[in-house]
Amino acid sequence: MEIVTESSVSHQEKLWGPVRRRCSLFNDKMIKFGKGMVKIGKDDPRKVFHSLKVGLSLTLVSLLYYARPLYDGFGAAGMWAVLTVVVISEFTVGGTLCKGLNRGFATLSAGALGLGAQHLAALFGDQGEPIVLGILVFLLASTSTFMRFFPRIKARYDYGVMIFILTFALVSVSGYRVDELLTLAQQRLTTIIIGVATCMVVSIFICPVWAGEDLHNLVASNIEKLGCYLEGFPVEYFQSPEDGENDVAGKAKPCLQGYKSVLTSKSTEETLANLARWEPRHGQFKLKHPWNQYLKTAALARHCAYQIEALNGYIHSGFKAPKEFQNKTKEICTRMSEESGMALRSLATSMKSMTDPSPAVVHVESSKSAMKELKLVLKSVSVNQADILAMIPAATVASILVETVKSVEKLTESVQELASLASFKSLKTATVSPEKQAPQLLHRGSINPVLDGVDRDHVVITVLECPAETEKPQPVNGEGVKRSEVNISCKQILSADSFFSQCRTRV
Amino acid sequence: MEIVTESSVSHQEKLWGPVRRRCSLFNDKMIKFGKGMVKIGKDDPRKVFHSLKVGLSLTLVSLLYYARPLYDGFGAAGMWAVLTVVVISEFTVGGTLCKGLNRGFATLSAGALGLGAQHLAALFGDQGEPIVLGILVFLLASTSTFMRFFPRIKARYDYGVMIFILTFALVSVSGYRVDELLTLAQQRLTTIIIGVATCMVVSIFICPVWAGEDLHNLVASNIEKLGCYLEGFPVEYFQSPEDGENDVAGKAKPCLQGYKSVLTSKSTEETLANLARWEPRHGQFKLKHPWNQYLKTAALARHCAYQIEALNGYIHSGFKAPKEFQNKTKEICTRMSEESGMALRSLATSMKSMTDPSPAVVHVESSKSAMKELKLVLKSVSVNQADILAMIPAATVASILVETVKSVEKLTESVQELASLASFKSLKTATVSPEKQAPQLLHRGSINPVLDGVDRDHVVITVLECPAETEKPQPVNGEGVKRSEVNISCKQILSADSFFSQCRTRV
Repeated sequence: MEIVTESSVSHQEKLWGPVRRRCSLFNDKMIKFGKGMVKIGKDDPRKVFHSLKVGLSLTLVSLLYYARPLYDGFGAAGMWAVLTVVVISEFTVGGTLCKGLNRGFATLSAGALGLGAQHLAALFGDQGEPIVLGILVFLLASTSTFMRFFPRIKARYDYGVMIFILTFALVSVSGYRVDELLTLAQQRLTTIIIGVATCMVVSIFICPVWAGEDLHNLVASNIEKLGCYLEGFPVEYFQSPEDGENDVAGKAKPCLQGYKSVLTSKSTEETLANLARWEPRHGQFKLKHPWNQYLKTAALARHCAYQIEALNGYIHSGFKAPKEFQNKTKEICTRMSEESGMALRSLATSMKSMTDPSPAVVHVESSKSAMKELKLVLKSVSVNQADILAMIPAATVASILVETVKSVEKLTESVQELASLASFKSLKTATVSPEKQAPQLLHRGSINPVLDGVDRDHVVITVLECPAETEKPQPVNGEGVKRSEVNISCKQILSADSFFSQCRTRV
Repeated sequence: MEIVTESSVSHQEKLWGPVRRRCSLFNDKMIKFGKGMVKIGKDDPRKVFHSLKVGLSLTLVSLLYYARPLYDGFGAAGMWAVLTVVVISEFTVGGTLCKGLNRGFATLSAGALGLGAQHLAALFGDQGEPIVLGILVFLLASTSTFMRFFPRIKARYDYGVMIFILTFALVSVSGYRVDELLTLAQQRLTTIIIGVATCMVVSIFICPVWAGEDLHNLVASNIEKLGCYLEGFPVEYFQSPEDGENDVAGKAKPCLQGYKSVLTSKSTEETLANLARWEPRHGQFKLKHPWNQYLKTAALARHCAYQIEALNGYIHSGFKAPKEFQNKTKEICTRMSEESGMALRSLATSMKSMTDPSPAVVHVESSKSAMKELKLVLKSVSVNQADILAMIPAATVASILVETVKSVEKLTESVQELASLASFKSLKTATVSPEKQAPQLLHRGSINPVLDGVDRDHVVITVLECPAETEKPQPVNGEGVKRSEVNISCKQILSADSFFSQCRTRV
C-alpha cells in the first residue's frame, strides 16, 4: 500500500512538478515586472499622469459614440476620433502637437489631392479609371515614402507624410465606390479635428509635460553630472591607500558614474529638440527659443564627457608618481579638477534657474590659472631618470585635465551664448559704484567675500549692470581710478584678484 | 516722358522685386532638396527600392476595392488593408514583421477582449452600459499606456500595445451601435491579415533589407573606421613640418574623421538589434543569432572610440618631445597604433566575410609586445630636467595608446566570442603537422611568410584544427618536440616569433 502511494506521489510529482515550477517562475517574473512598474511610476510620476490623461481623452471622444445627437451627426466617422486620440497621444506636449498638426494638415491636403485624382481618373472612363488611380497611388506612395528618408522631413514631418499617403490612398481609392465622398471627407475631417483638439487640450492644460523643459533640464543635469565627476575625481584619484577606502571612496562613487549617461544622450536630445520646436510659449520658453543652441551646448558637454571617460581610465591606477612630482602637482591638479567641476555645477545651477551663468566664469578663470601654474611647476620639477615611467600616468591625468579645462571653457561660452539668446535673467548680486569702492579697496588691500550662495567661495563683484546684448567690454579710460569710469560689462564678473590688479595698474 | 517710364520701372521693381527674389530663393531650395534626394538614392539604392515596394504593396491591396467580387466580400473593411499597408511598411524586414505581427496579435486579442467587455457591459442595462464601457476603456487605456513606458515592452511591443488600445476602444465602443459586430470584426481581421501578408511577402521576397545584416555590417564598419584611424594616426601625428603637409596629411584625413560616427551610433545599433530579433533565418544569420553579442561588441568599439577621441585632441599638437625621447618612442608608438589598427581592420574583414577572426590576434600580440617594449624604453630613457614639460604631450599620447591597445584586445575577445556563438566559418589557411615542421623551423631558423591576404604581413600558422567550443589550450607535454604532440587550440594562432620561442624552450 505504501509503495503504491509513494509511486503515485512520484507520478504526480512528475506530472505537476514542471507545471508548478513554471508557475512559480511566471510568478517571480510578474512580481519583478510589477516592481519595475512601481519604480517607473515613482521615478517619474508624470508617466502615471500621462497614462491617466490618455484614458481621459479616449473616454471623452467615446462620447461621440454614446451621445445620440453627436452620433447622428457624425455616424461611423466617430471612429476616426478614437483612432486619432490613440495614435497622437504622446508623452510630451510637443509630441502631441507635432503628430496632431501633422495629421490635420496631411489629412486636409491629401484629401483635396485625392478628390482631384479621382476627378482626373473619372475622365478616362470606367475602364481607365482604376488603372489611372492605381498609377497615381503608386507614384504618390513611392515618392512620398522616398521623401521620408530626407533627414529634415524624417525629423519633423515623418508622421505627416505617412498620413498623407494613407489619406490619399483611402480617398482616391474608396471614392471609386462611395458616392457621398464629400460628406464623408467632411465628417472624417471634423472628427479628426475633434480628436486632435481633445488631445491637445488635455495634453496642454492637465499636468503638461513640455519637451522643451525636458531638454533644458536634461542638458543642465548632464552638465551637473560632469561637474559632479570632476569634483569627485581628486578625492578618488589622490587618496592614499591609508585613507581608508570605505570612507572617502564610498561617498565619491555614485558621483563618478553619472557622467556615463552623458556619453550616449545624443539621440534623446535631438528628439526632444525636434519636439520642442512645435511647442507654444510656456514659462520662460518662448515660441522661438534657441533650441539649436541647446544641441550645441549638449554636444560640447558630450565632448567634455569623452575627456572624462579617458580620465576615468586612470582613476584606479593610483597616484604613484615620484614624491617631488606628487607634492608639486597634486594640489594644482586637484584645483584644476575641482574648479572645473564647480564651474560646471554653477553653469547647471544657472541653467536650472535660468539666470545669468557669469558666476561660473570665476571658477573657469581659477582652473585656467591653475593650468598655467601647472605648466610653471612642470618646468621646474626635477624627476629622477628612473622615475619617468612612474611619472607618465600622473602626467597623462594632468594632461587630460588640461584638455578638460579647455573644453569646460568652451562649454561655459556656449552656455553664456544660450543665456543671451534665451534672455536668462541677469543677476543683481551687488551693484557697486567703482568711484567709491575702488580706492577703498586699494587702501584696505583686502576684500571680504560676498557670500550669497551656498557653494560659492569666491568674491563676486558685478560692477555695472548693462543689457545682456552688449557682450563686449567697452574701452577703459586709463587716466586713474578717481576720474575714470570703469566700464565693465555685467558679463565680466571678475575674481577679486584680477579686479584688484586691474585697478592697481590703472592707478 | 522718360521720368514717367523710370518711375514706373522702379514701381514695378518695388512690387515684383521681393516676389522674384523669393521665387529664386525657393528655386534654390528646391534644387538643393532635389540634389539631396539624388544623393540619398545614390548612397543607398535600397531606399529607392523600398519606396517602390511600398507603392507596389499599396497598389496591390487597392485591388480589394477595384475588383468587384473582393469588394462584395469585404465591403468598406477593405479600407483596413490600405491602412495596414501604409502603417506597417518599414524599411527593414524586421521592422515590417515586428509591426505586422504586433498588429495582427493585438487586433485579435483586443478584439476578443472588446467583445467580452461589451457582453459584460450589456448586463448592466441600457443606462449602465455606456458607463461601464467608459470605465473599462479608461482603465484599459491607462494601464496599457503606462505599460508602454516599460523599456522592454517599449523596445519590442510598443506598436502592438497601441493597436491593442485602439482596437479595444473601437470594438467595445462601436459595438454599442453596430449590430453585426462579429461579422465586422471578422471582416476587419481578414483585411488586416491580407494587408500584413502583402507587406511581408513584398518585404521579404523583393530586394529584402535585413535589419540583422545591417547591424552586422554597421558593427563591422564601425570597427573598420577605428582601425582606419589608428593606422592613419602615426602618419598625421609624427609627420615633421618638412614632410609637406599636403602630401601626407591630405591622404590621411578622410580616415581620421570616420571614427566620429562610432561615438554616437548606440541608438541605431539598439534599434537594429531589436528589429533583427523578429527576422527569420536568412543567409548566415540564424533565427536565434546572438544579437546581444553584437551590442556588447559595439559597446566595446564605442569605448575604443572614446580613447581615440582623447587621442585626437593631441593629433595637431605636434610631436615636440626631446630628441632622445622622440627617437626612442616614435617607432614603438607607431607600431602600437598601426598594429592595433591592423588588428581592428582584420576583425572587420573577418566579420564581413563571417570567418574566424583569429588572424587579428597576431596584430594584437604585436601591439602588446610593442606596449611592453615601450615600458622598457621609458625606463631607460634619459630626459633633461628642462624637457619634462615638452615631453608630457608625447607621453600622454603614448599612455592613451597603451589604453587603446588594451581596449582593442577586449574588442578582439568579444569578436571571437561572437564568432563562436554565431559559428563563423573557420579558416583553413595552413595546416602544418608540428612533428614535421617544428624541427625544420628550428634548423632553418627562419620562416617564409604565408601570404594569403592583401594586408597581412605576418606569418599565420594554424597548427591543429579543433572545434570552436574548446577555447582553452590543452596542457603541453614538455619532453622535446619530436615526441611531443603540440596541442594548440585553433583560437591560439601564434605569431612566428612566439611560436619559435615556444618550440625552443621545449627542446
